[in-house]
Amino acid sequence: MRASRYLIATQKETPNDAVVISHQLMLRAGMIRRLSSGLYTWLPTGLRVLRKVEKIVREEMNSAGALEVLMPVVQPAELWEESGRWQQYGPELLRIQDRHDNAFCLGPTHEEVITDLIRTEVNSYKQLPANFYQIQTKFRDEIRPRFGVMRAREFTMKDAYSFHLTADSLQETYDVMHAAYCRIFDRIGLDYRPVLADTGSIGGSHSHEFHVLAQSGEDDIAFSSESRYAANVELAEAVAPAGERPAPGKAMEELHTPGQKTIAALEQAFGIAANTSVKTLIVLGEVDSEDESKEAPLVALVLRGDHELNELKAEKLPGVASPLQFAPEERIAKELGCGIGSLGPVGLAIEVIVDRAAAHLADFVCGANKDDYHLTGVNWERDVALKRVEDLRNVVPGDASPDGNGTLEIKRGIEVGHIFQLGTKYSEAMNASVLDENGKERVMTMGCYGIGVSRVVAAAIEQNHDDAGIIWPEAIAPFQLAIVPINMHKSEAVQQKCEHIYEALTAKGIDVLLMDEPKARLGGMLADTELMGIPHRVVIGDRGLEKGNIEYKGRRDAENQEFSADQIVDILLEKIAH
Amino acid sequence: MRASRYLIATQKETPNDAVVISHQLMLRAGMIRRLSSGLYTWLPTGLRVLRKVEKIVREEMNSAGALEVLMPVVQPAELWEESGRWQQYGPELLRIQDRHDNAFCLGPTHEEVITDLIRTEVNSYKQLPANFYQIQTKFRDEIRPRFGVMRAREFTMKDAYSFHLTADSLQETYDVMHAAYCRIFDRIGLDYRPVLADTGSIGGSHSHEFHVLAQSGEDDIAFSSESRYAANVELAEAVAPAGERPAPGKAMEELHTPGQKTIAALEQAFGIAANTSVKTLIVLGEVDSEDESKEAPLVALVLRGDHELNELKAEKLPGVASPLQFAPEERIAKELGCGIGSLGPVGLAIEVIVDRAAAHLADFVCGANKDDYHLTGVNWERDVALKRVEDLRNVVPGDASPDGNGTLEIKRGIEVGHIFQLGTKYSEAMNASVLDENGKERVMTMGCYGIGVSRVVAAAIEQNHDDAGIIWPEAIAPFQLAIVPINMHKSEAVQQKCEHIYEALTAKGIDVLLMDEPKARLGGMLADTELMGIPHRVVIGDRGLEKGNIEYKGRRDAENQEFSADQIVDILLEKIAH
Repeated sequence: MRASRYLIATQKETPNDAVVISHQLMLRAGMIRRLSSGLYTWLPTGLRVLRKVEKIVREEMNSAGALEVLMPVVQPAELWEESGRWQQYGPELLRIQDRHDNAFCLGPTHEEVITDLIRTEVNSYKQLPANFYQIQTKFRDEIRPRFGVMRAREFTMKDAYSFHLTADSLQETYDVMHAAYCRIFDRIGLDYRPVLADTGSIGGSHSHEFHVLAQSGEDDIAFSSESRYAANVELAEAVAPAGERPAPGKAMEELHTPGQKTIAALEQAFGIAANTSVKTLIVLGEVDSEDESKEAPLVALVLRGDHELNELKAEKLPGVASPLQFAPEERIAKELGCGIGSLGPVGLAIEVIVDRAAAHLADFVCGANKDDYHLTGVNWERDVALKRVEDLRNVVPGDASPDGNGTLEIKRGIEVGHIFQLGTKYSEAMNASVLDENGKERVMTMGCYGIGVSRVVAAAIEQNHDDAGIIWPEAIAPFQLAIVPINMHKSEAVQQKCEHIYEALTAKGIDVLLMDEPKARLGGMLADTELMGIPHRVVIGDRGLEKGNIEYKGRRDAENQEFSADQIVDILLEKIAH
Repeated sequence: MRASRYLIATQKETPNDAVVISHQLMLRAGMIRRLSSGLYTWLPTGLRVLRKVEKIVREEMNSAGALEVLMPVVQPAELWEESGRWQQYGPELLRIQDRHDNAFCLGPTHEEVITDLIRTEVNSYKQLPANFYQIQTKFRDEIRPRFGVMRAREFTMKDAYSFHLTADSLQETYDVMHAAYCRIFDRIGLDYRPVLADTGSIGGSHSHEFHVLAQSGEDDIAFSSESRYAANVELAEAVAPAGERPAPGKAMEELHTPGQKTIAALEQAFGIAANTSVKTLIVLGEVDSEDESKEAPLVALVLRGDHELNELKAEKLPGVASPLQFAPEERIAKELGCGIGSLGPVGLAIEVIVDRAAAHLADFVCGANKDDYHLTGVNWERDVALKRVEDLRNVVPGDASPDGNGTLEIKRGIEVGHIFQLGTKYSEAMNASVLDENGKERVMTMGCYGIGVSRVVAAAIEQNHDDAGIIWPEAIAPFQLAIVPINMHKSEAVQQKCEHIYEALTAKGIDVLLMDEPKARLGGMLADTELMGIPHRVVIGDRGLEKGNIEYKGRRDAENQEFSADQIVDILLEKIAH
């Protein structure tokens, strides 16, 4: 591409409304422009990147055996009523009416449409498993669209849906998709982790998210320093500390702690380290299913003072109400006889569930269940029974990895992919079944597999940038090489060399940007190639050519290098992986 | 692709609701499925064709210097209010509201969005000309969606918009686009004509439609038997008959014609050939602009009895009201003294405009401006002055081509592309201007260029099919070759040969469908390959292989051919243009 026939559209100023770096750089590098809240036009440079991501996704989906289809963006309400989502889905679902007042929505996902298609087209187990995908414009009416294309209303998504006779078959395709996703993100060149995830509102039983690691991520990802283990912090298991619990060394004593109601206050006033005390949280237990008129019982959750409760883990425990509900202070005061700042497990007449780390403490400090008093030197079994130990907390850096290999690190991640085992949520509601080997009707089991294609572009920038701009991974760079001439239009030698390199590399299928605008300033061109993140750059001028040299700089290099002008094409071909 | 891992989805029955052949065959060949009125899912076979069309369009747009962008489907109402189209556009524009009650529409075209982009990004004449395109999902809320993807509500379109400082620059890009469109439809392999077209409601001054010739087309296209001239019948010029008007040979006489009020009635009762009589139509003239309170004058339009008035031509004439309005019968009776079945030019006291062909008649028959009477042997100038001759009629087959080469044929056409010179309609309304060489602000001039990508797929089928199904042009066939084995799973020789051909041709980038489903019947497989329109087919069985032969049939061939099994790969490579 010649710059003189292209729209570079770079900007020096950082736009006011752009908070995250990818949003800023996509605007500044001339990749996108805002049309309206959460709606963006992809300019030529942005679209080149988007299409490269799409191409990698398509190739890997095809080679994983998925078949590409294209479903309508506009979907009839009736199908969503069948699945029940017309009612369940919040205002993020943009509901519309056509000229005949029939109700439709702009599709945020396509489970209903594909299930409707498959229940008609697939009738026999012999046609299974089947896996269909599309790469398509989706719409979600976010209440507060932000971060540019990262959380836009209109975006490009790859969504795939698989259909199976058995759970084993689903697991097989799920594993194939897991591997395909790894190949996709490997090829794009991202530092990512497939992490165990919660299945959330979409339903189903088994799920991984694919996160690109970047400081600006919205999720905390725990991953092993030594193995492939990774999980959303919400889900990462906190294993029990190694070894036996230390033997008691102190006697239990009462400590007067007037006004000290928090772990931090205790630490400040008495020098009691947070990791030697426990905190006791009171939540509601499950209502007796035999007698629902009865009030929910209280349940105590005990954690080490420096640990955080993981509500998802807690609410999944038998005997604990889901969603998790903290007990009202008045009820605690009335039934347990003290305020919430003075609670402790000793002598508590309700069920007590102790976190694995708290259960490993000896000589610890806790509330005395009496206002303004704590107990010190407390020991499990000696002073208070240890009836039930569970995993209640969020993991922290340095925790042992649950797979036994290494310790956990925690980084922020941007979710760019998600694979689910949906089970029969949609196929049952919509009666999508096939005849099995014995001619018996069986509801199909489903999986679904998404990649936020436009989000991948932003995530790649969040992970790869510096003060000068974007640093594209080679595979998705809008251009692989920039040729920057010095006074091209005054020097025939410069012009010839530029054209020669341009033609030779373009002929090899390399995307080259030739900065051939007659009056462009050198500084401006260099800044543009860096802002646009072009991985390789040569600067060609008379002075260098006279010495037989051309100046080269890789986008991540600190210094320029001089290469022989005669061999530059071969040198560049070698440098540019393609 | 192996059929065992593919969704062929062919159907034997012709669906009831499908009227046109392309709709029927797209359903039967497993290309599309209906989701809702005017909404279709593209199955793998259909999408393969769609993507091939897209690829050709993209390549030719790129090589014509257009830059690809991607604009949002959802567009804010404000922009449409700026251009005035929010009010003008009918209910085909699907208007929607987001969760904050802001008004948007689903884009049927993108003039407003691109003009908004360009007025921000382009400030100097040096950045012009510029031409941007996208290939995108569009939505038009048709009142009666029909003919499958031919007139769907959601469809894929390539739309391009160019911006210029001068009309000459616009004409240059317009010509480049005209040439690119020809290359696109040539490469796809369609019989088409670029035809002069009316600019319609979108505005602007110069326009060509690209029509695929097919019996089921909705438009009549007149084109020369000898040259590249082609025009929509609405616009095709009807040139004056060659030679001088014959000299008068008969005397003018009155003929009593009680009850005969039409050309057909005269022909039946008196044997007067329609092409020897004229008909006189009374329309409203232009209102006097100096005195608008005056009634519009009456104007007579005179045509040969066998010709049809072209209303578009008539209403463009000076002195004729636009849009064309026929005069009420009562006013004709009152002012001209007879009913509409007895009108004629002789002695008429209003302006008379005579069609070129009618002006060439001698000894003709016309109404006598007296109920139940006609005149015979009428001659121009002798019996009635010939003051104004114009082109008033639709061309008919056999008319001379307006460019002087050959005669006109008329065929039906399906519009698949349209190029417009928009002028300043949008740029003026939306204030899109640049600074010219002298630093003066100048409103840009625009062109726009559309291709109905999904419509091209249907049009290709309308033009290329037989009783067995679709006959794809090579360039857009979903598969170029089908390999049909006989008892593949019982014969190792058959299996090896099939796999060998499959691997060898796939490696060359050819799209091959290997019909490898274990229990598929031969007849069914052959019917499927024909219904799906696959251009080349080989049948491989033990009996042929024993003789060293493989059976080949091109989709348009009447007979099978036998080829050497040893040389089949080379023979196929030669046959398959790629």
